Amino acid sequence: MLILTKNDIEMCYSIEDCISAVQDAFEYFSAGKVDVPLRTQIVKSNGKDSFLCMPAFCEAYNAACVKVLNMFPENINKGRPSINAQVLNIDTQTGEINAILDGNYVTQLRTGAASGVALKYLAKKDCHKGALIGTGGQAATQLEAMLLMCKPALVQVSDLDFTRATRFAQEMQQKFAKYQTKIMAVESANTAIKDADVIISVTPSTTPVYDASYIKAGATICGVGSYQPQMEETPAELVTRADKIYLDSQAAVLAESGDLIIPLNKGLISQAKLTGEIGRVISGELVGRENDQEVIFFETVGIAAQDLMTAKTIYQKAVEQKIGSKQN
Amino acid sequence: MLILTKNDIEMCYSIEDCISAVQDAFEYFSAGKVDVPLRTQIVKSNGKDSFLCMPAFCEAYNAACVKVLNMFPENINKGRPSINAQVLNIDTQTGEINAILDGNYVTQLRTGAASGVALKYLAKKDCHKGALIGTGGQAATQLEAMLLMCKPALVQVSDLDFTRATRFAQEMQQKFAKYQTKIMAVESANTAIKDADVIISVTPSTTPVYDASYIKAGATICGVGSYQPQMEETPAELVTRADKIYLDSQAAVLAESGDLIIPLNKGLISQAKLTGEIGRVISGELVGRENDQEVIFFETVGIAAQDLMTAKTIYQKAVEQKIGSKQN
Repeated sequence: MLILTKNDIEMCYSIEDCISAVQDAFEYFSAGKVDVPLRTQIVKSNGKDSFLCMPAFCEAYNAACVKVLNMFPENINKGRPSINAQVLNIDTQTGEINAILDGNYVTQLRTGAASGVALKYLAKKDCHKGALIGTGGQAATQLEAMLLMCKPALVQVSDLDFTRATRFAQEMQQKFAKYQTKIMAVESANTAIKDADVIISVTPSTTPVYDASYIKAGATICGVGSYQPQMEETPAELVTRADKIYLDSQAAVLAESGDLIIPLNKGLISQAKLTGEIGRVISGELVGRENDQEVIFFETVGIAAQDLMTAKTIYQKAVEQKIGSKQN
Repeated sequence: MLILTKNDIEMCYSIEDCISAVQDAFEYFSAGKVDVPLRTQIVKSNGKDSFLCMPAFCEAYNAACVKVLNMFPENINKGRPSINAQVLNIDTQTGEINAILDGNYVTQLRTGAASGVALKYLAKKDCHKGALIGTGGQAATQLEAMLLMCKPALVQVSDLDFTRATRFAQEMQQKFAKYQTKIMAVESANTAIKDADVIISVTPSTTPVYDASYIKAGATICGVGSYQPQMEETPAELVTRADKIYLDSQAAVLAESGDLIIPLNKGLISQAKLTGEIGRVISGELVGRENDQEVIFFETVGIAAQDLMTAKTIYQKAVEQKIGSKQN
């Protein structure tokens, strides 16, 4: 069994690799080719901490994995990560568990890559300015996916905590120097999104984090943070105004994302407003962007297929490049 | 995260440690204190290979784990193990996955320990002869549990393949020299069980592997091999004749073990014949052996609580003794 830490993965696997894997994930998922049993969840008696177990299998892709993810929200108060995850990668021909991968980093990668796939298919050809709202643990991979797919000259970054945004922007300017994009913190989300061609929001907010009237025609917006029904980072005005709305999984978004559940429940939109799954754009069944004026919204809550294809392709790269430590 | 291979576990954890953990597992389980969601199973399109995922949690024991176990029965033809398993041990206070343990060895240990617990509570005080039927991958820990709990002067071992039985007996005589028991292979199961005080059968047989008339009064018999409804290594005559029948989990045995499902379906016994779960003997709610004449049968199919308590206690020992390799 190969042990693959975050450092190991960084050595052999790029966000570009992951965008390719997640593109496959969305396409196979929407084609009904990914077998994902209902995930098991055990909740502790405090009603807050939970243990999740998510197996997935895609015979057509020769991929099988199990992601174990434990959410302990009060860890934050103890200076520990609130999410702890590991992914076991499984050989579909022998049943052997051939690798264990840092599940937190796999999650960051595949969540960034979801936006990367969306921007690849939905963003305008020419994007000059990007905006990133939220600078927590998932933000770096989101930013890199945007830089890679859209090559904006400028990305403005905002956060409730401006000091954190400033530090993040400085770190990212160094880390992603090769993309030659100016990355700067700004005081408000509205400043960041004004004139932006591509926007990613990745916050756990329960109230909208920007004013939809600042969104310009032709913008592509990825909503990444809202994975629970009470979370609503995206203003309902944007959801109603968007010309097209794409999703990673329609069933998962309708079950989990407040960004859409709340305006649906309020009657501000109907389900007919949802254009469809991004996987059907990838396969060519659905059309994506048709002109440079459309406002397009993509909502992702994250699906097991992303972990599945990501883990499999990381494992392949690690074996090819002899990365990771072997334990039997 | 600590990586614990079979070698690591052997260095710090004994069958005696495991019997103690499994005794707790049975007691907590029968008291309804172990949270075990329905396990998820994905079956490949060949209808044979399957991926199983088994989470378990016991708040009262501060234990949480996930066992991932893949069954590929045709691996045998390729010279590979048909079962591949890993167990992730989880810190119940932080949600951190703090260890990954060789799941095949954990399974062998906890399955042997189940018989150890049964013999501790159900066998006669003085046992002179033991019998072991089946010498496959689960046999060594079964034998050691018997040697430890019953200290017989002689154990006779049988297998369909006498050469394999002979090799096994020779290896075990060396490995378990400290118990000072003579371990020898015999040509037939009936020879092995004749005059035996304790008997363990651990075969995947679909037809009974011995003749119940050779079982003597006072014998304790552990049925370990029958974990699917079509598997029947134990003769129905023994099940009908037994004075008492104990189980690891009544629900699991009635769902999975042909040893009991088949005679129940044939009307040879009724459910009233089942004395109850061993966990209730451990807690004192149920009486165990009452005299040296009773023939007592114990059936185990294996439950997630065994993996849970075993993984937790292995992890504790490994940390105490600084065993295993650390990876983050």
